[in-house]
Amino acid sequence: MEQAPIRIDGETRLLAIIGDPVSQVRSPEIFNPRIVKAGHNAVLLPMLIPQATFDDVIKGVMGIGNLLGLVVTYPHKERIFPHADRVGQIGQAVGAINAMRREPDGSWTGDMFDGAGLVGALASLGQTAAGRRILILGAGGAGSAIAMALAASGAATIGIFDLDGNRAAGLAARVQTHFPGCRALATGAEVAGCDLLINATPVGMAPAFAFAPFAGELHPGLTVIDIVPKPETTSLLALAREKGCPTANGAAMISGQADALLSFFGIGSA
Amino acid sequence: MEQAPIRIDGETRLLAIIGDPVSQVRSPEIFNPRIVKAGHNAVLLPMLIPQATFDDVIKGVMGIGNLLGLVVTYPHKERIFPHADRVGQIGQAVGAINAMRREPDGSWTGDMFDGAGLVGALASLGQTAAGRRILILGAGGAGSAIAMALAASGAATIGIFDLDGNRAAGLAARVQTHFPGCRALATGAEVAGCDLLINATPVGMAPAFAFAPFAGELHPGLTVIDIVPKPETTSLLALAREKGCPTANGAAMISGQADALLSFFGIGSA
Repeated sequence: MEQAPIRIDGETRLLAIIGDPVSQVRSPEIFNPRIVKAGHNAVLLPMLIPQATFDDVIKGVMGIGNLLGLVVTYPHKERIFPHADRVGQIGQAVGAINAMRREPDGSWTGDMFDGAGLVGALASLGQTAAGRRILILGAGGAGSAIAMALAASGAATIGIFDLDGNRAAGLAARVQTHFPGCRALATGAEVAGCDLLINATPVGMAPAFAFAPFAGELHPGLTVIDIVPKPETTSLLALAREKGCPTANGAAMISGQADALLSFFGIGSA
Repeated sequence: MEQAPIRIDGETRLLAIIGDPVSQVRSPEIFNPRIVKAGHNAVLLPMLIPQATFDDVIKGVMGIGNLLGLVVTYPHKERIFPHADRVGQIGQAVGAINAMRREPDGSWTGDMFDGAGLVGALASLGQTAAGRRILILGAGGAGSAIAMALAASGAATIGIFDLDGNRAAGLAARVQTHFPGCRALATGAEVAGCDLLINATPVGMAPAFAFAPFAGELHPGLTVIDIVPKPETTSLLALAREKGCPTANGAAMISGQADALLSFFGIGSA
């Protein structure tokens, strides 16, 4: 696909994805074509901020006058939290943020968009979270962000399965506290009463054996989303398609998150 | 002219031109095509570092792990000096630097390349500074950097003219101190005994009247360089060409400086 080239001049505004390491990030390749297409003079760069000196370096970086905002990846999502002057509802609920923008008054607003990508992946299937009965596999960072985003979007019930039962119970309790309108609980890996299954574990990166336990239970009324970006079709998604389930993969989630982040930064469209 | 596009991914290393303001800088458009052509995964960005918070912000910026180096413009050339762990001979002589690079051990080396561009412009005419009898008009920041670079390159004599005679005398004395092998003195605007005339004042930006006093004195053995970047042919250069003098303009100087800076950053060629 032919793309308009990145242009950089004296008026270019900066976005940076910060992490340690940062060489593995894909965000520049995902965001910059969208920014160019939308006609904005801005660019997303990788910026390595070492763990050892994070607090000092981030303060200086936040002082760069033409910095529009930051995308935040491992291991800085918790550590940057106190540097935001205010944090949105989902970021507060998760206790971590993955984006921060400079407001016109110079203050900084943060929020967590790792779950917004899941909501975007649902939208790509013509679906929403409202009223859904959801099972999330994995109560780690990704599972937490997804649970909060789905609860904020009106999910009816969210069951959370994790090999570490305490972690699942802790997340369910936090969802319940922040979003009392959503029923959240730690559960087994049972999809029978659900209409949306989300794999928020890295298990899908391994070959087919991993989701064999679900094979008999997947039903055509179930939508299945696997956040693992590679392979494109995980073992879970392959099983789901055999059963006629609507599916979305990690790429749909990454795309959905890019849309949400660019909108947050105010450069989402021309 | 068709150019290879700027590519940015997780492994891209950063160069920044810092200033306040920074929107007027042309360096990204001059440097990035050369960096791409040389096959390096690096990009030069504009970075606004506010005067009011310079020392705090620059410390943080210098802590960015994938930052290769900085190009420095107004008003930070003096202020950044103490942030360098070591400064080259010309930077020491000028008392200001316009570039700083991170060494493999994490320390920072700075130097002043504003005059290197003039040496590059000379080279584009097939000339060098060695043994030359030079008149420099203007003892400000540009004139100082040029005088030191020419003295370092073996100029025989450097006469310095400035409407502020004390400023001319001060610069001549500093040249003499740092480069005792070059005879430097404050002079009138007389080109009779010279073989190289350099306009390091902004006077050339005004129309033709400005250099009328020289019209009778320019001789074909004189090379004339005007550092003013616009117009391309200043009134001085037009007069010089009428007399058959070899000439170079601000664009040749900018190009020469880009070559010198990229070489300093170690990304000068493929």
